[in-house]
This record gives sequence, C-alpha cells and structure tokens, in this order.
Amino acid sequence: MFETAELGRKVQKKEFKQRVPDLRESLLFAQRQMQEAGFPVIVIFAGVDGAGKGETVNLLNEWMDPRWIVTRAFVAPSEEEKERPEYWRFWRELPPKGKIGLFLSSWYSDPLLRRVYGRSNVAEFEEKLEEILAFEQTLADDGALIVKFWMHLGKKAQEKRFKVLERDPFERWRVTKMDWKHWRMYDKFITTAEQTLMRTSTGDAPWHIIEGSDHHFRSLRVGNLLLEAIQRRIADETKRRQAKEASKAQSPEPPVTASSNEAETPPPPVTVLDRLEMSRKLTGKEYKSLLGKYQGKLNLLHREAREKQISTLLVFEGWDAAGKGGAIRRITAALDARTVQVIPIAAPTDEERAQHYLWRFWRHLPRSGRVTIFDRSWYGRVLVERVEGFASEKEWRRAYAEICTFERQLVDHGIVLVKFWLHLTKDEQLDRFQERKETAFKRWKLTDEDWRNRERWDQYAVAVHDMVERTSTKIAPWILVEGNDKRHARVKVLRSVCEKLGQAVK
Amino acid sequence: MFETAELGRKVQKKEFKQRVPDLRESLLFAQRQMQEAGFPVIVIFAGVDGAGKGETVNLLNEWMDPRWIVTRAFVAPSEEEKERPEYWRFWRELPPKGKIGLFLSSWYSDPLLRRVYGRSNVAEFEEKLEEILAFEQTLADDGALIVKFWMHLGKKAQEKRFKVLERDPFERWRVTKMDWKHWRMYDKFITTAEQTLMRTSTGDAPWHIIEGSDHHFRSLRVGNLLLEAIQRRIADETKRRQAKEASKAQSPEPPVTASSNEAETPPPPVTVLDRLEMSRKLTGKEYKSLLGKYQGKLNLLHREAREKQISTLLVFEGWDAAGKGGAIRRITAALDARTVQVIPIAAPTDEERAQHYLWRFWRHLPRSGRVTIFDRSWYGRVLVERVEGFASEKEWRRAYAEICTFERQLVDHGIVLVKFWLHLTKDEQLDRFQERKETAFKRWKLTDEDWRNRERWDQYAVAVHDMVERTSTKIAPWILVEGNDKRHARVKVLRSVCEKLGQAVK
Repeated sequence: MFETAELGRKVQKKEFKQRVPDLRESLLFAQRQMQEAGFPVIVIFAGVDGAGKGETVNLLNEWMDPRWIVTRAFVAPSEEEKERPEYWRFWRELPPKGKIGLFLSSWYSDPLLRRVYGRSNVAEFEEKLEEILAFEQTLADDGALIVKFWMHLGKKAQEKRFKVLERDPFERWRVTKMDWKHWRMYDKFITTAEQTLMRTSTGDAPWHIIEGSDHHFRSLRVGNLLLEAIQRRIADETKRRQAKEASKAQSPEPPVTASSNEAETPPPPVTVLDRLEMSRKLTGKEYKSLLGKYQGKLNLLHREAREKQISTLLVFEGWDAAGKGGAIRRITAALDARTVQVIPIAAPTDEERAQHYLWRFWRHLPRSGRVTIFDRSWYGRVLVERVEGFASEKEWRRAYAEICTFERQLVDHGIVLVKFWLHLTKDEQLDRFQERKETAFKRWKLTDEDWRNRERWDQYAVAVHDMVERTSTKIAPWILVEGNDKRHARVKVLRSVCEKLGQAVK
Repeated sequence: MFETAELGRKVQKKEFKQRVPDLRESLLFAQRQMQEAGFPVIVIFAGVDGAGKGETVNLLNEWMDPRWIVTRAFVAPSEEEKERPEYWRFWRELPPKGKIGLFLSSWYSDPLLRRVYGRSNVAEFEEKLEEILAFEQTLADDGALIVKFWMHLGKKAQEKRFKVLERDPFERWRVTKMDWKHWRMYDKFITTAEQTLMRTSTGDAPWHIIEGSDHHFRSLRVGNLLLEAIQRRIADETKRRQAKEASKAQSPEPPVTASSNEAETPPPPVTVLDRLEMSRKLTGKEYKSLLGKYQGKLNLLHREAREKQISTLLVFEGWDAAGKGGAIRRITAALDARTVQVIPIAAPTDEERAQHYLWRFWRHLPRSGRVTIFDRSWYGRVLVERVEGFASEKEWRRAYAEICTFERQLVDHGIVLVKFWLHLTKDEQLDRFQERKETAFKRWKLTDEDWRNRERWDQYAVAVHDMVERTSTKIAPWILVEGNDKRHARVKVLRSVCEKLGQAVK
C-alpha cells in the first residue's frame, strides 16, 4: 500500500515559493466560503514519526486564517477524561461549524499503538476500528468534512531523518527514545497501519498517503488535497441549494410541513402505549409506605454506587404534564444534592447549534460516581424534531442508530442508564392542563406550546411507538410508566431505578 | 454573632403548608422577571453540618422552575482543576445571566477548613478572605446578585441532630466520622466562621444567619430572604430603567457616544508610545541570525518548561496591521504544535455573553506545561470596548483593577505571563493597509473596521496609554514593541519570551 506513495518526489524551493501564494489565496477563499456554507472540517494527521506532521500543521496555521482553525492533540487522558466514555475527549474537542480542526493525534493513535505493542488482539483491534467508523460516519452524516492524511516515511528514510535531527542541537529533542523504539518495530507498525487504513478509508472519510521525506512536496500535497476537498464540498452544497431552489420555483406553494405530515400520518394505530394498563393506581397509604421504602433503598444504593464510582444516568421523556418533574423530585429527594445534576433540555445555545446534535449531551456526561438526570434528552431528535419538521426525515431516521451507538458507549463505560417514558391518556392530560391553569404556582408550567403539542397527539404517538421499538435495546430498554396515577408512576420509577442500580452495584 | 440567630424559632407544619403556595408563586414570578432583567443569582450555603443545607437546596429546586436553577458542589479538585489557578473551577461553574446557582459548597469551604485544622495561619487566612472579597466584588460589579446563607446549629443541637439521624437506618449515612470530628472542633469552627462572616459580609454580598434546627422555619426563612433579594434587585433595575427613559425624554436627541467621546478627548497628548524609538531596525542578515538564535533558545526553554509543568501565557495586543499574527507565527514555529493553542479573540458567543466578561478568558486557561497565545485578549475591555462605547465608563474604569487581580492569580499559580503591545506609527499603518489591499492573499486581513479604527487613532492612543500605565504591574509588565520594522519586532518578541521563560525555569 505504501509502496505506491510518490516515493522520492521532490519539489524545489523555487517551485515551492512560486506555487504557495496561489494556494494560500485559494485556501483563504475556501475558508470564507465554508463559513457561509456552515460545515466543520476535521483533518487527521497520522503516520510515521518524523514524517512532518507537526511541521505541516504549523504551515497550515501560517497559510490560513488562524481565527478559523483549531489545533488538537491528545496526550494521556486526564482523570476527568478517564471518568467518561473513551470518546468524550474527542467530542469535547470537535471543531464547530465553519472551523477547521487539525488533529495531530486522534482516535486512531491509541488503537494503533495498542495493537502494535500487542496489548490488544485482532478481535479487539477490529472492534476499535468499527467504533472509529461509526464515529466518523456520525460526524460525516451531520455534514462534517473529514480528510485524513497518513504521513509516510520508509524505514531507511526515517532512520536518516532521525540521525539528521540528532545532529542539530535545536532539533535533537524531536527524536526521543520512544521514536527509536518505534523505529525498531517499524515493520509491525506498518502492517498494522495498513490494516487500519484499508479498514477505515471510506467514501466519506478517505485516507491520503503522503510521502513525507521532502517537506516542500508534502506541504504542497497536503495543502492542495485539503483545498480540493473543501472546494468539492462547497460545489456540492451549491448544487444542492440550486436544485432545491429550482424545485421550489416549479411548485411555488409547497405544502406546509406540518399539514403534509398530518396528511401522511395514518389514523392512530395501535402503539406500544395502547398496551399499557392505564388504570393502575395506589392509595395514599400504599403510596406513602412504598415511597418511603424505595427512597430509603435508593439512598443506600446511591451511596454504594458512589463508593464504587459507578455513574448513573436517568432519562425522562413523556407527554406534557405526565409528571416528569414530580418523578424527578422524588428521586433527587433521596439523593445527596452534592452529587446530582438535573439537566433540563431546552433550546440549544449557539455553541451547541454549531455542533452535532449529540454534542450537547456528551458535554453533560457525569464524572464517576455521580447521578445525572436528563429532563428530556437526545430523544428530542426523534420526537419533537421529527413531528415539528425541525429534523429532516433522513436525519431522524438516522438518529435511531446514532442513539443506540451513543448509549452503547455509555453502558460499555459502566454507566447505569435508565430511560423512562411517562405515559398519560389524552383525557387525563386535559384534566391536568385545566388544573395547571387554575393553580397559581403551577400556571407557569402550562404554555401555548403544550396546547399545540396536544393537537398533534396522534403524530407524537406514532413517533413514540417508533422510538420505543427502535431504541429499546437489551442494554438500555425503555421503561414505560403508566402515568395517569401519579403515585403509581413515581413508585414505579423509583422501584425501577433501585432495580437497575441494585444489579450494577452487586 | 450566632447567639442572635432566632434560636428555637419554630414553624408548625400547618402554618408551613399555608405559607408555601404564596411563596412558591412569588419565587416563580421573580424567576421569570430576573430572566428578563438578565442578571445571575449566586446563592451560597455554608454553615454547621446537619443544619439542613442539602435539604434546603432540594426544597428550592422543588419550589422553583428547575430549568433556571443549577446546583453546584465542589469536592476535592480534579487534576485538570489543580493545573489551573484556584478559582478556575469556580469560574467554570458560575450560573449564566437569568439563572440561579445554588452553591452547596463554594470558595468559602477550603479556606475555612484549612484555618480550623490549623493548616493556614492568620495571615494566610486573611489573604484568602481578601481573595474572596475581590472575587465576589467582581461578580457583583457585573450585576450578579449574591446571597449568602449561614445555616446555624448550636453544639448541643448538632449533637442531638446527629444522634437522631444515626438512629434512622436510611439517614444514618448522613453522619460521618468526619462530622463527629468536626463536632468536637465545634468551638474552633464557630470562631473561624465568625471571623469569616464578619470579614465577608459586604453591602453587595451580605450573609444571613439562619437557625437550622427547625426545618419548616429555616426553609421559609431562606425562601423569603432569597425572594426579597431578587425582588429588591428587580425593583432597582426597573427604577434605573425608568430614570434613564425619563432623562431620554427630556433631551430627545442625546449626543452619540462616539462623538461625545471625541469631544472629551483632549488633543493627542504625549503617551508612553511616543517615547518609543520607532526607527529601530534590523538588516536581513542580522534578522536571520537572531531569529534562528532565539527560536532555538525558545525551543529548548519550552521543552524545559514543559518538563517542569510550567505553563506559559502570551498576550498580544497592538494596532491593526502591527504584525501580531506574524510575531505569533515566529513563536509557534519554534514550539511543539501539540502543546500550543492560539486563541484569537473575536466577538463572544452567546454562552460567553451570558457571563462576566473575564469568563471567556478563564475558560481558555492552559493545563500545566502548555503554551496559550491570546491574539487580542481581556484588554479589549479597556481598548475597543472603551473607545467604541461598548462598555460604560464605570465598567472600563473598574476593569483595570479586575484585570490586575486576574493576572495576579495567573502569576501566583506559576504561569509565565508575558504581554506585548505592538506599536506602529500612523504612517506605517497606512503603508501596510495599502500593501494588504494589493496582495491577493493578504486582502482578507483588511476590513472596513480597520479603516474605522484608524479614524479613531488618537482615542485609541489615549486608551493604550492608560492601559499601559494602569496594568503594567511588577508581576506582569507590558512589553512595548517598536513595530515599524517587522524584523526588529519579531526578534524583540522572541527575545522577551526567552528571557521570561528563562527566569521561570531556572
């Protein structure tokens, strides 16, 4: 694979100096266009030590507008990073829309080195590559442009380069003992790299192999490939926009999304929700005794989990007025306020809007031993965003798989994940809306939006049905809660959390 | 001091139940008003263990709209937190405008306990209290409402409370060995607390002592005091707005800020900048040799600093086209791209706008051993924000002290801080603007804003003069760089960084 690299290609200094100004101008222009188009660019540098990764990144910083570039490099994960799933630190460093992220090390570094050192076997290595593919696919689907450079150097060339550097007193530091150790493992390293590149070179995120021995050549090559990739994407976006406008021009009055959705919605089908026994209820006496029982139990389990550094993540979804807030408060009352965070999900901030929709949930993942409660969650993508047309059909359909992958990472990291759908009949909701209207300190809870959502009850019911069916995985099943009786609902929620936590601390 | 607490005050359950609905309604209404008024509320809970801090916070969460509340508690600092100045972790958890932050532990916890344990002497303790005062003053000046509750319990009452809790199997966990240890140190604890409260009860951030033995009483008291504080602030804001509108109505055409500024600006005075010898220059040969020399030196020093975990923070300010970018690139070229971040300061994001203006700089502080370069900085407050009228005169005048305090914290933490003002004569700037206009790949650098800023040269010169005079402290002096000759400027910048870094790694 690497033999086909343009071995020995050289660019003379004079030619380099002639070609750089044009390239810079084009890169700067492309940078401005991509800000308008609003997509992020992720540039990954990997390869043989000494092949010029750092120098190339410095040069790109010099050529382009630094206000729209971020440079990232990952060393050993910090304690805060180790306490979260592996990809947390990558998510937190992603460039926002309109910016270019230059990654000097990345999600490839650790899997590759572990394999070379024999610390992972073939199956584990393969699994890591699968994770990388899923991660990059998620970003690419959301519009990120991913460009990957493998900076190559033959074994002899690497040795020569190290020796040259070692002779220069100012450059000597660049060659570490680790570098020589890797050099002796060169063949093993290259074989593993070959597997990695073959497996992870996709249409959306291809690898480019760059011969690194001549710095003029490699700089121009990287600059030009990056430029072409950005230009191609911008051209695609322009074409898409024009096609959209053309189709608009043909049918000047497109049907409103909402009504078209309604038209498509089949008459209320039998959903999983219809199978719930909504008549379940508890007497005041039963409730009091069970509430005390499970709050006490939860408290003990919570402290045990904290000692064992097990994190808990609770997700609450449900109809408006289904009692999410009340159920959450019955939980927090049993916990130590110092280790609990309730995250209410409302409209994203502009920093959040400039990222993949899952980014704002990643950023709130708890440290070890803590409890995080999401009042609404990433499921907004397949509920409100689907029904209101904020997400395209392609986007929300894709989201089921993205969410399952996300949750798999949480559970793999040892987080206890429990998801609740608080169900309510349509009549009961109306009663509660009326009550809220009449009670002074509940009035703020009732908004015009609640009434609008209610009008789309059937569409939401279909969305909930699909959501439960597609994201009720073995590792993170939905718990459907019959919510017409608040007492029953709260006790069921508490009991379920106790069960899950009990299994985890065992 | 604590004897005056309303000892033994009790509220019966019936009275409590009657009074809560009104209080909740008022709190909810106040929450909505404070969102419109746009200020954050910081509520600090401190006091005797077992006096109900956690329970009160739970209750406030229950009474109010949880979407606008965040609960904070600090345990032992993480590695990432330890690598930054002490207050970094507090800054990062501040509530944004419109939200209430409930602090179950805070900047008071550590100084207080250290003193009680005898790990700090009186002078050190006093210094910590000074830091707290400065911090709270900074937040209050920016409009934060700070309310502090000391939850009190007598020594006997605490003992009784612990024993009651210990008898309940579900509450037993609340009483730890540490609690009993603290109980035995009660008198020392109370004496230190008294000093703390006396020293830090200011007009802007007063302490309220709450007798904690009766939970109905303490809950109502905290709820009412918080409500009153918010209402008072909202009333003040309303009055201020009305006064402003009234004065506007009287003089329907107020002079535009900019022109009024111009009128006030005295004819260009002799500023510190006029004393610079702007004719300094280097020949191409001298430049090449000195550039290599200092880049090599910087590289060695940088690696030494990294090994010693010393962070470096470089600040670049200067006239448009003074060569900030070029100087920065000559520095980054000598460093390992993996450990350097260049932070270009442009318009704040909306998350940043919802915080104190220094917040967005705090969030970028480097971890140990790294280099962070600010291309423009917190000095925008006393430069562009002053000249353009984005900050009120009160705000930018206050900023000099705020900035000095901020920089003192950086230096105290061991960060190497170097600040550069790149100076240029007005003629030289014009030449450079012309050149940028004519060079394709430099054209993006020249904006309409640059021309507008140029028109206000004299006002900026006064602002720069004041800035240098007021913020050139012994620990963080300004380095004024004669920038008409780019070669001289770059070498001076490199040499200065080497000097500062050299002193630090010694």
